[in-house]
This record gives sequence, C-alpha cells and structure tokens, in this order.
Amino acid sequence: MLDQVKALTFDVFGTVVDWRGSITREGEALARSKNIHGVDWAKFADAWRALYQPMMQEVRSGRRPWTKLDDLHRMNLDRVLRDFSITGLSEPEIDHLNRVWHRLDPWPDVVAGLTRLKRKYILATLSNGNVALMVNMAKRAGLPWDVILGAEVARAYKPQPEAYLRSAELLGLRPDECMMVAAHNSDHEAANALGFHNAFVPRPTEYGPGQAKDVTPSRAWDVLAKDFNDLADRLGC
Amino acid sequence: MLDQVKALTFDVFGTVVDWRGSITREGEALARSKNIHGVDWAKFADAWRALYQPMMQEVRSGRRPWTKLDDLHRMNLDRVLRDFSITGLSEPEIDHLNRVWHRLDPWPDVVAGLTRLKRKYILATLSNGNVALMVNMAKRAGLPWDVILGAEVARAYKPQPEAYLRSAELLGLRPDECMMVAAHNSDHEAANALGFHNAFVPRPTEYGPGQAKDVTPSRAWDVLAKDFNDLADRLGC
Repeated sequence: MLDQVKALTFDVFGTVVDWRGSITREGEALARSKNIHGVDWAKFADAWRALYQPMMQEVRSGRRPWTKLDDLHRMNLDRVLRDFSITGLSEPEIDHLNRVWHRLDPWPDVVAGLTRLKRKYILATLSNGNVALMVNMAKRAGLPWDVILGAEVARAYKPQPEAYLRSAELLGLRPDECMMVAAHNSDHEAANALGFHNAFVPRPTEYGPGQAKDVTPSRAWDVLAKDFNDLADRLGC
Repeated sequence: MLDQVKALTFDVFGTVVDWRGSITREGEALARSKNIHGVDWAKFADAWRALYQPMMQEVRSGRRPWTKLDDLHRMNLDRVLRDFSITGLSEPEIDHLNRVWHRLDPWPDVVAGLTRLKRKYILATLSNGNVALMVNMAKRAGLPWDVILGAEVARAYKPQPEAYLRSAELLGLRPDECMMVAAHNSDHEAANALGFHNAFVPRPTEYGPGQAKDVTPSRAWDVLAKDFNDLADRLGC
C-alpha cells in the first residue's frame, strides 16, 4: 500500500525546524545587543506562536483576505512586543526579528534524514509558511527540498482541504501517492481524510519541557518514526 | 546595479535542457522498439514544438480555460502522431511519450553551472512547464533548484506579465532583485519591461543546425554568457 507513495509532503514548523528554541536563542542574542532586560524569550516565543492559529483563522474564515504568513507574523509580533513591553527597536530591527521564522534551525536529524529520503521520494514542503520563508529557511539550513508547496500556492491555510489537494495536484499525483510527514495529529487527520498516507514523527520538546500534546499518535498512522533517520530506515531509503 | 540581484529565474526549455535532441533520441529508441519506420524524429520534435506557442495562445487569450502544459502537450502530440502517420501505440505508450518533456537532458554545462550559482543566488524555475514536469525533470537530471515557480503557480503563460510578477512576489522580491536567465530574446524583453535584470545565454543549436533566431542578443542585456559556467564566472560564483 505504501509502495504507491511517490512524494513525501512535510509539515515544517515543529516537524522540521525547532521554532521555539530558535526564537529563544535569537531573542536572547537581541536582548544582549540591545540591552533589553527581564524578558523570558521562551515565553515570548510561546506567546508569538499562540497567536498563529487565531490569526490564520481570520483568513480561513474569510474575515481577512488572503494574507501570507510573513504578514500575519508581523501583526502578531507587534502585539507580542507590546505585551512584553519591549521598546527601542527600529523598524528594520523589528522586520529582521519578524524574519526569524526564515532562520529557524532544523532538528539535528533533519538534514541527514532528508538527504536519504530524497533519493527515493519527491520531497515537498506542505507548510503554512509562505514560499519566500521556506526558500530562505532551506538555503540557510541546507534543506534539500525538491519543491515548495503548501498554503501560499494554494491560497488556503491548513487544515483547509485546498492546501493539501492543490499541493498534490501540482505534483501531478493523487492524494494516495503522497505521504504527509508531520509531528501533529491534527495535520494527519486533515490529510488522511483526503486520502494522503501519514508518517508521524513526534517532536516531544517542540513546546518545551512537559509537552503533553502530540507526543503520541492519535491513531494508527501508516508509519511511526522516532526522527527523520528512523523514517528513512522504515521507508527503505 | 547587479549587486541587488538575489534570485536567478530560469527559462527551462531550450535554456536549461535540450528538448530537440532529447525528443529525437527518445523517438528513435521508441521507433526501434516498436518497429516504426520512416520517421525523421528531429522533424517530429520540431513539429511538436511548433504547436507549443499557438496552443498556449489559446489559453493566454482566454479562448481555453487554464490548462497545464502536460495537457497542452498531449493534445499537440495526438495531432503530430496523426500528421506523421504513427500508429500502433497504446494509450500508456502515448502517455509515456508525452512525458518525454519530464525526461529532457540538460546541456552539458548546466549541472556544474547551477551548482556554482546556487551558492550565491536563489535558483528558481520561471518556465511555462507545469510543476510536476519541472520536479520530475530536476530529479532525473540533478538540477538543484531552490524553488519551482512560473506559469502553473501564476496561472499565466509567459510572456504574460503575471507569470514573471507572481514568481517574484512568491520569492518576496522586487522584480529588480531577480535576474531572468534565458536563451530567448522575447523572454528577456517581457521580463525586462517589468524590471527584471537579464542574463542572455544563447543556445545556438536549440533548433538544430542552421539556427538563425536567438543566436545573438537583441539588446545589450546586463550579462551575456556563453554557458552556465561562464555565467557563474561573470557573476562571481
């Protein structure tokens, strides 16, 4: 049944890259260089990320016209900076901080695992991140994608069906020729309902120590792998 | 002025890959295996390619709804097979032949040149080929694109402005941060009118021996390079 899979479609934030650790590290460096004191940057990262789903929901619902993730991130950043009483950043500095999402570090297994998986499969991003974000992240981190797909080319944010279906269509593949690789059960549930196969790769520290959500699969997904190297093993790469 | 260029956007058919030689070779192999006699496969390739612009014009004009290039190629192939009186191919064989465009061979300088250019620039396709065609071609030939853009994601065929502008927009770049790399003056003229920079790389045997068109630049484009290695030299890669 998995023999028919030709493309692996990847969730990115959390599954491929460690957004929380990366934002925390960059925030701490910014605080040192700008003499910002008293900010818990892991909490800052969590607060910024907490606004992610509600802001996308504005777009999904049609209350806000199509807006790429860079611009949603910026509106959310302005709010989080206010909430954390962080002042004294210039517009170029705020813009640079907003683009920290273009500079997220991958989990340690990612580059080696993707390099193996690429020999056998088409590797596509299927992320809510916009194309420029994905391209810049990949250049910096050495992520060997074959193609950047997902929300911006579909003009629909996951878990809306169009995000998955348009990505498969652009690959010239049926959904059952694609396998979603993600650390989030909700992503798998949406993709599976459309016919995608599913490889669950938990990232149990994505949300920091004590994470309760998504540490185990909610259903018996096709593949359960510890990390991307284990995924390559299980898929015979 | 060229210092601001962050992405190279590539025409593909003719500029990156040798469609005429590739189709000729595959046609000759097909003829041997299927006992097809008396076909001049270079002429067959030329005839197939000659229907390319008129069929895209049907879409550009709105007379035909958006149709991806694989499907335009197939309609044109059915006609060329009739015109060359080629019979006896099964539906899977015709479909396979139609996908010869996914299996075109690059010019000899391409992989080495792109590999050098990729260190300094974002490498994007900006082709009229559909995404699956570009992805499959790149996997087979080892073309190290960072991102697949162009007609299908823009839903507009070059030289329509949307094809170029949407590609730059998806990269998060202004047109003058992009440089079109192409062997065709008409492509450069359309891109340049929108603010793109231009690198002309002639492919003087694209149309076979005795080619008269596009052997020299029609204007003083920013860069004139003999091939992709020369382009990498000239761009300091």
